[in-house]
Amino acid sequence: MNVVQRISLAHGEGGELTHRLIRDVFIKAFGSNESKQLDAAFFNSPTKKMAVSTDSYVVKPIFFPGGNIGKLAISGTVNDLSVCGALPLIITVGFIIEEGFPLGDLKEVVQSMATEAETAGVKIIAGDTKVVEKGNADGLFINTTGIGLVRDEWRLNPDTVQEGDSVIVSGTIGDHGISILAARKELGLITEVASDCASLNRLIQELLHELDGIRLMRDPTRGGLATTLFELCEDFHFTVELEETSIPVRRDVHGACDILGFDPLYLANEGKVVMIVNAAQQQKALEILKRHPFGKDAEVIGSITSCKNPSGKLLLRTPIGTTRRLHRLSGLLLPRIC
Amino acid sequence: MNVVQRISLAHGEGGELTHRLIRDVFIKAFGSNESKQLDAAFFNSPTKKMAVSTDSYVVKPIFFPGGNIGKLAISGTVNDLSVCGALPLIITVGFIIEEGFPLGDLKEVVQSMATEAETAGVKIIAGDTKVVEKGNADGLFINTTGIGLVRDEWRLNPDTVQEGDSVIVSGTIGDHGISILAARKELGLITEVASDCASLNRLIQELLHELDGIRLMRDPTRGGLATTLFELCEDFHFTVELEETSIPVRRDVHGACDILGFDPLYLANEGKVVMIVNAAQQQKALEILKRHPFGKDAEVIGSITSCKNPSGKLLLRTPIGTTRRLHRLSGLLLPRIC
Repeated sequence: MNVVQRISLAHGEGGELTHRLIRDVFIKAFGSNESKQLDAAFFNSPTKKMAVSTDSYVVKPIFFPGGNIGKLAISGTVNDLSVCGALPLIITVGFIIEEGFPLGDLKEVVQSMATEAETAGVKIIAGDTKVVEKGNADGLFINTTGIGLVRDEWRLNPDTVQEGDSVIVSGTIGDHGISILAARKELGLITEVASDCASLNRLIQELLHELDGIRLMRDPTRGGLATTLFELCEDFHFTVELEETSIPVRRDVHGACDILGFDPLYLANEGKVVMIVNAAQQQKALEILKRHPFGKDAEVIGSITSCKNPSGKLLLRTPIGTTRRLHRLSGLLLPRIC
Repeated sequence: MNVVQRISLAHGEGGELTHRLIRDVFIKAFGSNESKQLDAAFFNSPTKKMAVSTDSYVVKPIFFPGGNIGKLAISGTVNDLSVCGALPLIITVGFIIEEGFPLGDLKEVVQSMATEAETAGVKIIAGDTKVVEKGNADGLFINTTGIGLVRDEWRLNPDTVQEGDSVIVSGTIGDHGISILAARKELGLITEVASDCASLNRLIQELLHELDGIRLMRDPTRGGLATTLFELCEDFHFTVELEETSIPVRRDVHGACDILGFDPLYLANEGKVVMIVNAAQQQKALEILKRHPFGKDAEVIGSITSCKNPSGKLLLRTPIGTTRRLHRLSGLLLPRIC
């Protein structure tokens, strides 16, 4: 008989079962460190300027084509640090587990986290586990907090954005959003689109290492490419004009969006970066991106048409030649996307 | 008419309502920082050695006598860093909010966090908000991750523990556990016990600044004093003998435990520290503790009776002169205590 081992509330009590869970699941996957018996983990900070980023992951479902909540929790935080020009070094992980969650699923998620951390070259050095009663959470939530080293030579500076700068996206948009939607099986959507969920730190480091004309970067996650760019326009007072026909969207993502009434510009991405680059370096940027598997579909999608402009806005030139104004995502599109 | 504003799923979508929630609730309470428009927050690390600690808080109920989940989330992480000899500097906060959670309650929790951070002298510099559908969480969960500076002169070293060292606790035990239990109103327990929930960093810093004989410190939270000391005995191979009559327990906590069948040794504390101190400095340690409101009930509660002993154990001498062995908390006592 194959009995599924499940998380019980006692796994969160700080007693014997918590001890075993930490030893048999977390330390087994993440490894141990010198300060494992302390309440805090020590690490050396190699320079004076550091960056920190925190995110909770509540994606539903927990497993989806292209990844799971664990891979997403690592790569998401790695990417948040990377787009700020920081070198991700360490990550802490906090689990909130619903009573009854299958232990096998937890092990699979934790193993994905260990694998993704190794791929990205970051160390998981501290963790915490809480268990709540059945019905008081939805399977598994994960918080990751990442700490990175800010390298002065990688300093991004939005103030250097100029009229004529290019806007580049590293690949097709909306893949994560559509894959999550399909994995939910609610809308009868059948597709082969997998989430783009990936750690982009090495790709981003190559760009920052080889080019000095990258003004600004973001990972267009919740709210999608449009919300991300809208917020840049608003925060830094410039206008972006996008060319709709240049924006890479997979044919099947387009098809799914048409059927379901979604706009790929507002769908979440988990393995893409959008950046503003000195136009003189756009070709070089594309070359660097395209030699990397995560950047092979990169495109120049627009440009900066005005800057130092308090009424900065995001515009989209459509295939028929009209221009429409895009805004921040408003209201509800797709909850629990990351 | 007084309409209660509630959290909607759209507050977690990364769009307009998320933007307003961050601006009107979080930035309003925590303040802003230079890197607020980035995905990561920058901070300067003043030296090379840093400590990091992460914890998720799922306490039920969210408001209880002596505090709420927000105060607990700040002081808990401040204490985890402090007992390791680190000076807490910055904290990140991650919120998972259930759809329908009252906005007024969120503001109250967030304000408590801001106040407690100010009291403790730490800065909240990065945050994240997720909202899940009604029924998929229990009101509000908070993750806090803290980063602290490890001061070499405060280095604690378990290897220096010696036979004859004293075990000191900073005050009465079990207050938090009983106050949470009473706040749940499930067991018909009526008591005036308030949670001891408090940031102990200043108290701990005074001890570490004035004494060089503190070998080891812990905050006895989940699993209580007994589990905390048991784990020290197991990890660092020494035997602790506690004097039951010396352990400070409020009379009403004792009474509640007797009625409900709990042992105060296994009840959580959120504003206490237990430490192993060179016996020659125990008087001085008590003096320092007692001049501080959070340490006024401090007592020497036992001593180290053997060390460098692979079968280190935790023993309790009872009032009738017998000795019994204590173990790690086993099974379920009180879920959702922190």
